[in-house]
Order: sequence, then structure tokens, then C-alpha cells
Amino acid sequence: MRNIKIVLRYNGAHFYGWQKQKNLRTVQGDLEDAIFAITGERVEVFGSGRTDKGVHALGQVASFHLETNIPLKNLQNALNDRLQSDVRVMSISLAKDDFHARFSAKIKTYEYVVQVGGVSDAIKSELVAYFPYDVDLEKMKKAAKMLVGKHNFKGFCAADTQVTSFERQIFDIQIKKVGKIYKFSVTGNGFLYNMVRIFVGTLLDVGRGALSFDDVEKALTLGERKHAGQTMPACGLYLKSVKYSI
Amino acid sequence: MRNIKIVLRYNGAHFYGWQKQKNLRTVQGDLEDAIFAITGERVEVFGSGRTDKGVHALGQVASFHLETNIPLKNLQNALNDRLQSDVRVMSISLAKDDFHARFSAKIKTYEYVVQVGGVSDAIKSELVAYFPYDVDLEKMKKAAKMLVGKHNFKGFCAADTQVTSFERQIFDIQIKKVGKIYKFSVTGNGFLYNMVRIFVGTLLDVGRGALSFDDVEKALTLGERKHAGQTMPACGLYLKSVKYSI
Repeated sequence: MRNIKIVLRYNGAHFYGWQKQKNLRTVQGDLEDAIFAITGERVEVFGSGRTDKGVHALGQVASFHLETNIPLKNLQNALNDRLQSDVRVMSISLAKDDFHARFSAKIKTYEYVVQVGGVSDAIKSELVAYFPYDVDLEKMKKAAKMLVGKHNFKGFCAADTQVTSFERQIFDIQIKKVGKIYKFSVTGNGFLYNMVRIFVGTLLDVGRGALSFDDVEKALTLGERKHAGQTMPACGLYLKSVKYSI
Repeated sequence: MRNIKIVLRYNGAHFYGWQKQKNLRTVQGDLEDAIFAITGERVEVFGSGRTDKGVHALGQVASFHLETNIPLKNLQNALNDRLQSDVRVMSISLAKDDFHARFSAKIKTYEYVVQVGGVSDAIKSELVAYFPYDVDLEKMKKAAKMLVGKHNFKGFCAADTQVTSFERQIFDIQIKKVGKIYKFSVTGNGFLYNMVRIFVGTLLDVGRGALSFDDVEKALTLGERKHAGQTMPACGLYLKSVKYSI
């Protein structure tokens, strides 16, 4: 039995997220159905993490065990033929027996893309978020530095979370601006529910002057959600890459 | 009563085209509903032309008559607040009394975007078409030159058309390649049903060697659809601009 690793790219707009749900279209569900249709095997596909409804992936990693002895390149082509055009297997490879897309993951990078000001881009309304206010890039970069490091991120986490430990390590936050488009790139060893979307909402609110550095400091030290900024919409969020060694 | 001209940008993926249809979401229908909600006036919005289901616009032009005395900039903002995010009014202006978005149009430019080869882009599956075969750019440019000029384009027109005259003038066809992405830009004084999508399908088929220059010549001179190439899908097509003076 082979342990197979795949790298996926998908547009999350028409999926109810990664995780299988009855009678709803999900990435995991589509993949498992496609593998079944091709091989006759009902496997469970493990993702590096769940992505929410509307969230995209440039490099989601998944793994699954397969008995069928089909060459991997053929399996990739068969999957891409069968899957709808908004999800694609970008690469496929044999993984070690103990590899697990979720439990073996060490570092993830998310990207958040937002248009600041102007008339929002109708063509990319499902691919780029929109923020109507002017922002100060240098202020946002300064606030981003405050978030880097090992912290208790309870203040940057959606209230309905089930986790008990809120400590995560953020290695890097980059903000790049091209015209009205701002790209936030956030790398860390793990992420709480909605954490990147709250990070970006907080940084944008600092950038427009609605939040102060002191508010960010309070959200970090007091762990209270009310000091952080808004949760930005799913459409701007991309799971960019997952690394399995440090 | 003012005659108002608007320039629109929209993503056609979730519209059943431009033209109003009962119980289906259309760009014209959404605009007329939004104008009614803002002003209480039921107006008819004339587009420069119909775009089909799935076809996008970067610069569709529309016009309508309005009694309500609202400043134009306020009307633009109110429309953009009320419209869904996949359609936006990019500019608004007062037009001369005799201006009509459709009947006054002189020149239109369509753009067609297609990825050639590789794994198709899942993120942009509703924005970029896909062609799986290698193509020869120089061959396509040579075939494109054959289409430029005043011709009877009956061979490049969907069979179910209602028109009786098939003569149109194509001023220019540009093909630009960036990596795997090919952009076809077609400018003319008018377009038959599916004409740009058949142009691009024909050029790609010439580029891959499935059609010859002789086939293109036959489609032009004999006016028979069977000599031209396939109709490319709607998702790659953009109405780029409309000009009202030559």
C-alpha cells in the first residue's frame, strides 16, 4: 500500500471549504469521489489543514493511502480530467510511510490579497478582498513586527474555537504593495481559527488609524479579541505553501 | 430628463449574460433593479451589445434616461453600494440627447485570454480558458492577418443567428504571449454571434496544426462554418472597450 502526497491548487469560491460534509461540495469530498471513480477505492484524503468556505489554495498538501497500482503520473492526469476545473493536482509523489499531510506539517504560509481604495475589482470579486479606506503602509509594517514571534494569540482567534492552547509562533509577516493591491504573507508553525484574517483586519485598521499600536499590544498581552481588528472576508485568503522540514 | 452613460466592469461567471430574462440573474436586470431601488424609476438600460452567459466585461458601455435629479457621482456610488461585487460602475457621465449605447457604437474591442498547455489554472478557471495543445505563435499571427479587413464572416458565426448580413470589418487582431497565457485582442466595427470565440478557436487550431491556412481561406470565401475551428468557451472572453467615434 502506497502513501501518496499531492499538492493542490483550488479556487475556494464554490466549495464549502476543505472538510467533507454531507450534501455539500467540499475539496476533500471531490477528491475522495474522484479517487473512488478512478480506482474503486474509498480512501480518506488528509489535508494539511482545513480551509474555510471561500478560502483558496495555491499549495495545499494532502496525503492518502492507495492499494491500486496505477502509475502516479497517470493518477494525477486522471484526477485532473475528472475534477472540476476549479481544483487541480499540481504534483504527485510517493511519501514515506509515516508521512501525514496534517500531523507532519511544520510551517505554513498564508497569503492575503486585498485591494485598498478605488472601485473594487468586479472581475476578481471572489479572489481579492476590498478595503475602502486609505492606509499607511509603514504603520502596518510596524504593527506586523509586533505579531512576529512566539505569542499567545487568543486575542486573534475566532471565539467559537475548540482549541485550548493559543500559543503559536509566527516566523514572518511581509506586506507588499503593487498599485492598490496589498499582499500580506504570513508564515508560522500553526494558525488558530480565522487568525490570518484577523491579523490582516487588525493591520489594515492600524493602517487607517482606527486602531493603535497600543491596541495591538493589548490584544497580544490580554488575549482579548475586542482589542484586535475585524475579521477580513474569506475571498482574499490563500493557503500558499506547507513545509514538512524546518 | 438626462441621458446617462455608464462604463461597466463585470465578471460574467454568475450572470446569464447581459440581457434581461425572467427569473434569471442578468447584468441588465441587476442594473435596472438597482436604479429602481435608488430612484424609484423603472428605466430601460441599453448596453452596447449583449454579452453571453459567462462572458466578462472590462469596459461595457450602457445608457439610460433618468428623471430623478441625483448628482451623477452620488448615483455611481449608490449603484456600486447596491450592486453585487461582481459588477461595478467604473465611470458615469452625461451623454448627448441622441447618444444610444448600442446604436451609436462604432468600434468594439474584445479580448480573449487562454492558457496553452500545462495544468490549467484552478484559481482562474472562470476567467481564463484552457487549450491543451502546443501552438505555433507565428502561424497564428499569419492566420490572424487573413481575418483582418472587410469580409463576409458567415463561416465564423454560430448557426442559430438571426442576422442576414454577415459583412463586418475587422480592423486589427493582436496576439500576445506571456508565459503560457495568450491574449487575443480583436477590434472591429461589429461582431456576429460567437465570432470572436470562433476566431480564437480557429487561430488555436491553426497554431496546433489541426487547420491549415487553406481552411481559413475556405471559411472566409465559402462562408461555411465547417472550415473554421471550434467555438472557444465563454469564460476567456472579455468585452474590453467600445468606441463611439472613429
